[in-house]
This record gives sequence, C-alpha cells and structure tokens, in this order.
Amino acid sequence: MTDMHPAIRVSEIFGPTIQGEGVLIGLPTVFIRTGGCDYRCSWCDSLHAVDNQYRNEWLPMPIDAVWQTVHALSGGRPVMVSLSGGNPAIQPFGPLIERGHRQGYRFALETQGSVVREWFADLDVLILSPKPPSSEMTTSWAAFEACLEAAQEKPQIVLKLVVFDESDYAYAKEVAARYPHLPIYLQPGNHTPPHPGSEDTSVDLDGIMMRMEWLVERVTSDRWFEARVLPQLHVLLWGNKRAV
Amino acid sequence: MTDMHPAIRVSEIFGPTIQGEGVLIGLPTVFIRTGGCDYRCSWCDSLHAVDNQYRNEWLPMPIDAVWQTVHALSGGRPVMVSLSGGNPAIQPFGPLIERGHRQGYRFALETQGSVVREWFADLDVLILSPKPPSSEMTTSWAAFEACLEAAQEKPQIVLKLVVFDESDYAYAKEVAARYPHLPIYLQPGNHTPPHPGSEDTSVDLDGIMMRMEWLVERVTSDRWFEARVLPQLHVLLWGNKRAV
Repeated sequence: MTDMHPAIRVSEIFGPTIQGEGVLIGLPTVFIRTGGCDYRCSWCDSLHAVDNQYRNEWLPMPIDAVWQTVHALSGGRPVMVSLSGGNPAIQPFGPLIERGHRQGYRFALETQGSVVREWFADLDVLILSPKPPSSEMTTSWAAFEACLEAAQEKPQIVLKLVVFDESDYAYAKEVAARYPHLPIYLQPGNHTPPHPGSEDTSVDLDGIMMRMEWLVERVTSDRWFEARVLPQLHVLLWGNKRAV
Repeated sequence: MTDMHPAIRVSEIFGPTIQGEGVLIGLPTVFIRTGGCDYRCSWCDSLHAVDNQYRNEWLPMPIDAVWQTVHALSGGRPVMVSLSGGNPAIQPFGPLIERGHRQGYRFALETQGSVVREWFADLDVLILSPKPPSSEMTTSWAAFEACLEAAQEKPQIVLKLVVFDESDYAYAKEVAARYPHLPIYLQPGNHTPPHPGSEDTSVDLDGIMMRMEWLVERVTSDRWFEARVLPQLHVLLWGNKRAV
C-alpha cells in the first residue's frame, strides 16, 4: 500500500527515554525530532535540526515509516510521543496522530507558536514555548493566539519559557499575565549548547546549576508561586549527548 | 486568644523553595517538616526528624505559631505547603489546613500510609509513599487502604516509590498493579543520606546519577511507560544541605 500522505522531514527518532523538561518531565517518551525551523534562536540547542547546513540529514519519511519506527522503538506498547524540532508545527503530523491514537499512543507537541495547524486540536499535550528576548526572535502574538484557537482547549495546554536573564524573566512574567489560566514552566537556559559538528558533549554544569539557583531565587523572592522552575534533566544527567 | 488546638511537633519550617521531587517537582513550596516517625527506614534521609535522639529539637508549636510562620515566609501570598517528616500523619494538621485554605493556601502531605487521619480528605495533594524492601520496613496494606479511604478521592492522590535495587523495583511494580488508577513516581534512592550530627553536606553525585540511569533503563526496557522517573532535584542542586 502506498502512503498517500505527505512526508515528514525527520532529523531523528529515538527513545524511549524519559522526558527531560517541562510538564511531562520524567515520563518515558519516544521523541520525533523534525528538521527545519522558521526561527533561528541565538542559543538554539538543536541546531542539527534547524540549520540548513544539516538539511541533507533530514530524511523525508512517509507517515508509514515514521509510525513503524515509533511502534518498533516502543515494542508496540502505547507510549507518549514527543513531537519536537526545529519547529514540528511545520510538518504534516495530522495523519500520524490519528494513527497512533487508534492504538493508544499519546502525542505532545512542543512549538514556539509561530505556525498554526488544525491538528493542534488532536494533540494530547500542547506545549507553547514563546521565545524570550535573548533568543533575538520576535513573538507574533497574532500567530500565537491562532495556535491557541486551533487547539480549541482540547489538549492539555502549558507554557514553557526559557529564561537566561532579567529581560527574559520580565518577558516570562508578561506571558504569564497574558495567559493566567495556563500553567507555566520556567527553564534556565543552556548557555553551552551543543555544536552539531563536534563530538564534544560536555556542558558547563556549574554554570547551569548557578542559573538554576538564580531562577529559583528570582521566582521565590518575587513570590511567583504559580510558576514551576525545572532544569533540563537530560542535560544534568547526560550533558549534550544526543538521542538519550 | 489562646490556641485551643493541640500543638504540632515541628522539626523545621523553611521556604519558599522549589519542591525537589515527585508530582509537584519545581513548584515553589513552604515546607513544614514534623518530628517523629512510626517507621525507621534503613536509608532515612531525614533522621534529624525521625531519630528520638533529636527529639529535643522538635518544637511543639501551637497551630497559630505554625500558621504565622508559614504566612510570614510566603509574605502572605498563597503558596503550596508541603507537610513532611518524619511521618506528618502523626500530627494534628486538620485545623492548620482549614485555616490555610481560607486564605488560598494549598496543602500536600507526604506519608508512607501507615497512620490514617480524617483530615486526609481536606488535603489538596496526598502523596503516598509505601516503603520498599530495602527500607527494612513492612507495609501494612490494611492501614494503606484505610488512608486511601479516608481521602475519599478528594485530594489528588499519587504514589511515590523509592527504588534502590531489583527487589524495590519488583515491589514498585506490585504497588502499581494494586493501584493501576493512581499515577506513580519512581525515585532512585540516595545511598549517601545526611548524618544529622555532621556538617558534611556532600553526596555521591556520580552514584546518584548511576542509580538514576539504571532506573530509567530498567523502566524503559521493561516498557513501563506509565511510571515517571524523577531524581531528587534538590540533592542534585544542593547536595544534602538542609532547608533549601
């Protein structure tokens, strides 16, 4: 049978391993990382899935093949599937979600909220991660709103904000004020992101810890008791190693 | 006005800082650690709140005083209050919960499920943490069931299991099979718990990381995709330091 659906541009599929960040932290997950992004954040930690120079590594995979890979990795047992990137909203994920749901799999999308798709309403979890000033990107709130509308409050919707410095923190507070009904997760930035061309997977663990302590102190002294502060657990455990 | 309620035996009250483990990980929290425990786990990481030798450090505090301390620490802003110990179920927390709720505070209790109280139904979160074989304690399932019944499904109820080794892991799977409707959090044990009499707050971080990796591998290779695996974040960040 031929696959009539358009292909998904895949950078890597791996897992199951635990989700390292945000609302699903600790949950065994299979990750589909897609290639290509409409953003180019200054501190991007997934350049191998973003920079066009790695484009030839992004395999256009038919939905069938993507599904079979996820199914094999999970041994046919329903698992949470994380759709990340790059910006996975660029890809035609609708048919894959429909197929996985039929067998009890769940799907979480992580996106900056710049590209809207109808299939957002079919997700189980929608993690919206607008990019703060340190990214050097500009948020289109119109596009962001459209993402929320497309989801129709069907998936669990949460905010995730990366915070490197005071202006990022101020931005996070603005986003929280804009959407007081959405749970918010704050994450200290990784200022030593991996270099895709290098084998070096080391990180500045002390620096990451310091940023985490600063953010905890910032949030608690500010009495922002609704925000959750979580590090990237996979970075603490495994450094910048890929596919863990 | 005199406080007509019985006193709470307090080992320490501190915060706000983020919750380091389990379902509320990352959430700013004020911690009330009570003194005294009906258990004596071999690897207890809070001996200063358990061993009778520290009994003179457990202040019997009137509810008024406990509430005022929590209120002051949080600057009067509603926050999550964690009731831990020792076994906090021994203490008369009912009136404190009632008082805090009137001002929007929320309460999470963490207990092994060996002592049942009517006020469990007034909690916002009930974390039941039955102790695995490595603790050298024996679970009374009758008492545990009574705790669940007392809660009347009113609070959010979750399981938290500490796992040191294969027999702990097997125990965790049994508990999960017994209560398939309850979310379960697995936590690698801290095999270098603090010594209350010592200033040394160092931990064997490499050993903790190894146990975490083992547990992630164990759960994923077993395809136990419903279990969440989380380390004690505060130990990774701050070692065995108290009151952080």
